[in-house]
Amino acid sequence: MTRQIPETASLQAHFSAVRRQSVALCQPLRPEDYVVQPHPDVSPPKWHLGHVTWFFENFVLAEFVEGYVRFDERLNWFFNSYYESQGPRILRSSRGNMTRPELATVLAYREHVDAAVLELLGSDHPALDQISELIVLGIHHEQQHQELLVTDIKYILGTNPLYPAYGGAAAGAGPVEGRGTPAPAFHTIAGGLHTIGHRGPGFCWDNELGVHQVYLDDFQLAKSLVTNGEYLDFMADRGYERFELWQMEGIEWARGLDVKAPLYWNQDAEGNWFHYQLRGGLQVVDPAQPATHLSWYEADAFARWAGCRLPTEFEWEVACRQLDPEVHAGQNWSDAGQLHPQAPAKDESQLLGTVWEWTNSAYLPYPRYPRPEGALGEYNGKFMINQMVLRGGSCATPQSHIRPTYRNFFQADKRWQFTGLRLAKDAPL
Amino acid sequence: MTRQIPETASLQAHFSAVRRQSVALCQPLRPEDYVVQPHPDVSPPKWHLGHVTWFFENFVLAEFVEGYVRFDERLNWFFNSYYESQGPRILRSSRGNMTRPELATVLAYREHVDAAVLELLGSDHPALDQISELIVLGIHHEQQHQELLVTDIKYILGTNPLYPAYGGAAAGAGPVEGRGTPAPAFHTIAGGLHTIGHRGPGFCWDNELGVHQVYLDDFQLAKSLVTNGEYLDFMADRGYERFELWQMEGIEWARGLDVKAPLYWNQDAEGNWFHYQLRGGLQVVDPAQPATHLSWYEADAFARWAGCRLPTEFEWEVACRQLDPEVHAGQNWSDAGQLHPQAPAKDESQLLGTVWEWTNSAYLPYPRYPRPEGALGEYNGKFMINQMVLRGGSCATPQSHIRPTYRNFFQADKRWQFTGLRLAKDAPL
Amino acid sequence: MTRQIPETASLQAHFSAVRRQSVALCQPLRPEDYVVQPHPDVSPPKWHLGHVTWFFENFVLAEFVEGYVRFDERLNWFFNSYYESQGPRILRSSRGNMTRPELATVLAYREHVDAAVLELLGSDHPALDQISELIVLGIHHEQQHQELLVTDIKYILGTNPLYPAYGGAAAGAGPVEGRGTPAPAFHTIAGGLHTIGHRGPGFCWDNELGVHQVYLDDFQLAKSLVTNGEYLDFMADRGYERFELWQMEGIEWARGLDVKAPLYWNQDAEGNWFHYQLRGGLQVVDPAQPATHLSWYEADAFARWAGCRLPTEFEWEVACRQLDPEVHAGQNWSDAGQLHPQAPAKDESQLLGTVWEWTNSAYLPYPRYPRPEGALGEYNGKFMINQMVLRGGSCATPQSHIRPTYRNFFQADKRWQFTGLRLAKDAPL
Amino acid sequence: MTRQIPETASLQAHFSAVRRQSVALCQPLRPEDYVVQPHPDVSPPKWHLGHVTWFFENFVLAEFVEGYVRFDERLNWFFNSYYESQGPRILRSSRGNMTRPELATVLAYREHVDAAVLELLGSDHPALDQISELIVLGIHHEQQHQELLVTDIKYILGTNPLYPAYGGAAAGAGPVEGRGTPAPAFHTIAGGLHTIGHRGPGFCWDNELGVHQVYLDDFQLAKSLVTNGEYLDFMADRGYERFELWQMEGIEWARGLDVKAPLYWNQDAEGNWFHYQLRGGLQVVDPAQPATHLSWYEADAFARWAGCRLPTEFEWEVACRQLDPEVHAGQNWSDAGQLHPQAPAKDESQLLGTVWEWTNSAYLPYPRYPRPEGALGEYNGKFMINQMVLRGGSCATPQSHIRPTYRNFFQADKRWQFTGLRLAKDAPL
Repeated sequence: MTRQIPETASLQAHFSAVRRQSVALCQPLRPEDYVVQPHPDVSPPKWHLGHVTWFFENFVLAEFVEGYVRFDERLNWFFNSYYESQGPRILRSSRGNMTRPELATVLAYREHVDAAVLELLGSDHPALDQISELIVLGIHHEQQHQELLVTDIKYILGTNPLYPAYGGAAAGAGPVEGRGTPAPAFHTIAGGLHTIGHRGPGFCWDNELGVHQVYLDDFQLAKSLVTNGEYLDFMADRGYERFELWQMEGIEWARGLDVKAPLYWNQDAEGNWFHYQLRGGLQVVDPAQPATHLSWYEADAFARWAGCRLPTEFEWEVACRQLDPEVHAGQNWSDAGQLHPQAPAKDESQLLGTVWEWTNSAYLPYPRYPRPEGALGEYNGKFMINQMVLRGGSCATPQSHIRPTYRNFFQADKRWQFTGLRLAKDAPL
Repeated sequence: MTRQIPETASLQAHFSAVRRQSVALCQPLRPEDYVVQPHPDVSPPKWHLGHVTWFFENFVLAEFVEGYVRFDERLNWFFNSYYESQGPRILRSSRGNMTRPELATVLAYREHVDAAVLELLGSDHPALDQISELIVLGIHHEQQHQELLVTDIKYILGTNPLYPAYGGAAAGAGPVEGRGTPAPAFHTIAGGLHTIGHRGPGFCWDNELGVHQVYLDDFQLAKSLVTNGEYLDFMADRGYERFELWQMEGIEWARGLDVKAPLYWNQDAEGNWFHYQLRGGLQVVDPAQPATHLSWYEADAFARWAGCRLPTEFEWEVACRQLDPEVHAGQNWSDAGQLHPQAPAKDESQLLGTVWEWTNSAYLPYPRYPRPEGALGEYNGKFMINQMVLRGGSCATPQSHIRPTYRNFFQADKRWQFTGLRLAKDAPL
Repeated sequence: MTRQIPETASLQAHFSAVRRQSVALCQPLRPEDYVVQPHPDVSPPKWHLGHVTWFFENFVLAEFVEGYVRFDERLNWFFNSYYESQGPRILRSSRGNMTRPELATVLAYREHVDAAVLELLGSDHPALDQISELIVLGIHHEQQHQELLVTDIKYILGTNPLYPAYGGAAAGAGPVEGRGTPAPAFHTIAGGLHTIGHRGPGFCWDNELGVHQVYLDDFQLAKSLVTNGEYLDFMADRGYERFELWQMEGIEWARGLDVKAPLYWNQDAEGNWFHYQLRGGLQVVDPAQPATHLSWYEADAFARWAGCRLPTEFEWEVACRQLDPEVHAGQNWSDAGQLHPQAPAKDESQLLGTVWEWTNSAYLPYPRYPRPEGALGEYNGKFMINQMVLRGGSCATPQSHIRPTYRNFFQADKRWQFTGLRLAKDAPL
Repeated sequence: MTRQIPETASLQAHFSAVRRQSVALCQPLRPEDYVVQPHPDVSPPKWHLGHVTWFFENFVLAEFVEGYVRFDERLNWFFNSYYESQGPRILRSSRGNMTRPELATVLAYREHVDAAVLELLGSDHPALDQISELIVLGIHHEQQHQELLVTDIKYILGTNPLYPAYGGAAAGAGPVEGRGTPAPAFHTIAGGLHTIGHRGPGFCWDNELGVHQVYLDDFQLAKSLVTNGEYLDFMADRGYERFELWQMEGIEWARGLDVKAPLYWNQDAEGNWFHYQLRGGLQVVDPAQPATHLSWYEADAFARWAGCRLPTEFEWEVACRQLDPEVHAGQNWSDAGQLHPQAPAKDESQLLGTVWEWTNSAYLPYPRYPRPEGALGEYNGKFMINQMVLRGGSCATPQSHIRPTYRNFFQADKRWQFTGLRLAKDAPL
């Protein structure tokens, strides 16, 4: 989906940097941490390192390099994620049973593929443009898996009763003072006809295309994300028990799993709330920080409790273009390394970075959405049912991977990503 | 959600007619047929007869009639469907275990409540307007259950290996001749800003409100429903096996349940396809009839196979207003009594009646949707996640119950309703 | 397994009487009660009535009557229970979904088969001896299903929140006085070599054969069954929580299903215990009556709590031959019609009748057990794993069906039969 | 259950040797292999190493060493297996999600506990006799886990599509020649009264006690184990499809899991059978080797197919005392290091070692079985329901751990242990 093909040298450098970053993210791990799958949604870090490599080998090297010999044919079966077109593959829920190929083999596989890709990029292959486009795609694919690496590592460590820190120290929590009821300030955004979708030369996914117009009523969007303090108020107000705040499917989800707080939250005997953070391990919940690890069900119920609603993805995109249109380093991306949502500097909108913001839009194709043919048509286009759109990126997203039109999507019960919310409401008539 | 309150006498007559119709729909049943629940989605006919009665007793009589004595307090527990606000209730999947209250008791319950409602409507109760509004609501609620009665009875009889007919004879099937590939004719509908939602004085559900504008591109909509013949072509072209036609969730659904044809279809040893119909029992599949008992997954895959897509609910509503805006007796409603989709008369669009048409719109609230307070807020508003919208009504829908703005909704795997599809595509640029 | 073939006239009369009794047991039912299957172990009464009839048609009439025309070929599929050798059959858990064949058809099926059987028995068929033997087998098979009819009807009515009585009045409960700790009196039975298994000319099942010798140590067996009063003491002593009293599988069963009392027991707000009885519906638990509806897990835990153990089936049989060897009408059989365990007359041992007594013997073949060839080999011989033996018959067993060597068997978690226990212990050395 | 307390020095040496052996068994593993749990029955090797250590710390050091400081209090939660009396513990099925404590920590834990145990044994503690008895118990406990280590490692490696060898080479497979139908030679063993259970001063488990007499008829026992060749004949004779050979529960197990061969068997495109072995990885199935990795269901069906039956545990014990009463190094124990069943030397009976032999005896207490009080009562006594007895030990059992009276037990569907069978039949009358 690239439009603009970068220079070879620049592409080689970017490729190498992103590839190194995946391995760097795993540096704090112990060998044991690379292997397990404590939840079907969570893949072993070792698997991520292999899968993103298979992507380059399978879709680039095996396709374009004459006589290319795969590192090990048998790895296809392990590292194909869900591509029906690419043959049989391991059952997803069995990834965590596979102790082999071992980490050392996966790292050797990475080096083998990296060398071949760099060599190919440096060659005068007649299809170099097409190859470069696929490499850019593979880089973005690997960046998506870098975010998953962070969240999957968090799940592996954060559900272990020893609560081992991933390394580093947590940013200091502010004083636990009066929370106050949620009284957020709102921007008012003018409605009318707005253009939605990715334009311009940069990279985007297929699901951002089908640029089209959407008519919106005037609406209001909160100036800040919902905080832990506000969420604690919701909990204290029996938010998890009051069915009238919930979708029926949501309250049945909460009851069935006995959910009474965000993921990774624990209460001690005195009633204090702690949550696991990658930096520093178990920490007191800071009421000033943005709330995260919420399912759509919880976000939706919180919004109703607050007398508001979630924005649609169209409202969000329009507001983002107006309020926070540029990705820059001052936002809370994974590049900053804190890997946890931080209370913003004064007057920062945080639409980009910090947490993925649940919207009340189902993940559906845009008008004239071009579902690609072949394997890449399996990338985004076959998941367009029963998922909800999230916008904005998070503290685990690489800065170079994101933009205001980016559409992330998850099922309504998922909350191991850095997911949060921002309130919206209709403008007064 | 009524706007216009009917005259008392007219309301009494309408109430009585609808109440009689529920019992009449069950006349062809044997006593055994009233009791069972062969699938969690299917409720016993006896339960439907009781539940719709409880609705009137609980929300009208118990609320407004001074000193009203319930027929039997214990029936609340049996006949509350899902209203959290109305107290504990039987586990939905246990409805089919309850042999008592027996049918005779349920019928006596109906008579008791009917008499009290008619008396109340004939009184000079100071809240008569509000009461009348609730009675209209209850009538529409009962009509929804009449459609469920038809489809649940079909499931009970149609999954029995004796394939007992519900009574009556099937409309004659046309000759099984060449099917031809799908080459439907299309209407072209002009885009632009359109107003969506229910206006005017008649009854509507809350989910049709929040009248708002939607911007659409020009689009094309098939002049006719997809037929069995076209669907057989899809099957013959290995439609159920070609993953590239499906949403991933859809093909996993089909594989997991070994789905290879619409619900109620069976193939004999010679490869001929039969399907169960209420009238006449097992019948040869008529290629000229509209296809039905399809899940959203199947409808979506068929549309992709045909090089088209499903319409959005907004496209459908706009087209319906232009092409087939009026509900009338010539359409294929339950009132006609055939209870099966029929091939249309020449040039009939069939947007209204015949089969519910799957759209590619998720069931979400309209802008400024007014989720009601109290029990009625549980009616539509708590199901607005992970369901898809269907439009137009079916051969099992009472004619007086429906309109072009009516939004039905089911999960993507459901297909025991009379569900089908109509192809759409983008207008050429 | 008959040895002694009865006279034709006597057999005809016995056949007719047993056949009438099955229908008579259903007389108190409403039509709705015949249809449902509220638990996979529970079959609809309509199914029982058909299945026992199929047994005669399939194994006798279709085999021995030249040119016999089945009542309806399609009924085989419905009424074959588990005989692999007899072709495909309905999934057991779907029996309760089948509203057809309706009750009237099943009753007509019974009459058709009864007439044909009686005619065959009155004929001079050359294989009359073999036929008579099969008819005796079929009678005993039907008597087993009569016991299941009683227990399945109890489940259908007793798990309905209306607690409808099956008819009749409960035997008066004695005064609820001090329960006392269990201090049962014991018989001491001499060990040594004992002969086990059925001898003599009467009917028995294959699993009672393989008469063999067993060496026993001296042992003690309680003079009476465990009572509700004693069981209430166990409950009051936190018997369901103390893991050291239980098999691990047992306490996990109790925890998983939140079992805290025998089946059919409910506690009111004041803490009084009630239980459902067929006669009279919900009744105060009478501490003097024998405890029933206990799983093996509960019986085993109770025995350990009481400082005792369950007897083996061999100990039980030896004791029964000495203490209560003859089946007679004074015992608590279904023929008495109370269909509930009764406190015994003074000095009555109750080894026969009242409740099935759990033993600590696994259901395994006796030495030289003759697993029959063909369909009858499927009767008892294919269930000889993971079941425990019960002895003695119950208040739901027909008197003419039982004897001291009779081996009943159920999985350790089953408790919808009239199951109870009698304590045993080793004789002092 | 020790009777004879060994000398301190000898006990210290034995303790150290067994402790070293657990770690030695893991030497061929890669770090990844220590962590996973590909089946709920399979524990991670890292968990085994920790659990056996916890056993010594918890039941010996924490009980008897004044002021003993645990290595890390938090490890109790990880390494308590199923002792309710010892407090809360990790859900069994979550063992494979725990990457921490890491292997290095577990090894340090082992060293800490080993040093403390050796010091305690060398002290003049007043309870040294009792301590020594517990240490002997702990050694046997660790040896049981050594067998589980072998079988769990086999599962981890043998279900990986790379089939990595554990190291070493497989013993050469003999030529694949004509298999012949099973025509085993039999010993005839005289019946009568026999004494069963462990006598003498050596160690035994509680479940071998309750020495008692059993009366047996004369019987015959095969001179050799069932071989792969014989089992291939059973398969070729449609053994997995012929329901009359099976217990109903067994054939439903086989159908439900699509079982058509022993565990670890795979067929290549030409129909050749291979199976995974620890030594050498995937190997051709050698028809001369004893069959293994069979469930009780399969063993039972095979025996019926062969016109025989399984022996009871009493028959087996009586025969073992006569034919193969002494444990010695020539038998196929884990000490030999092959870790796979081997075809025997001529005239070797193989009752001891090679494979565990399924019997047709349920695992029930012997008469006067002394279920111990406290935690040790949880060791064997709470598993005495729905398990079958196996006898004789296997190629994965340490030689010093076993004897002819040893009762192993597993559920009928388990087959990841080295389980096989030997045919029995009644002696001719």
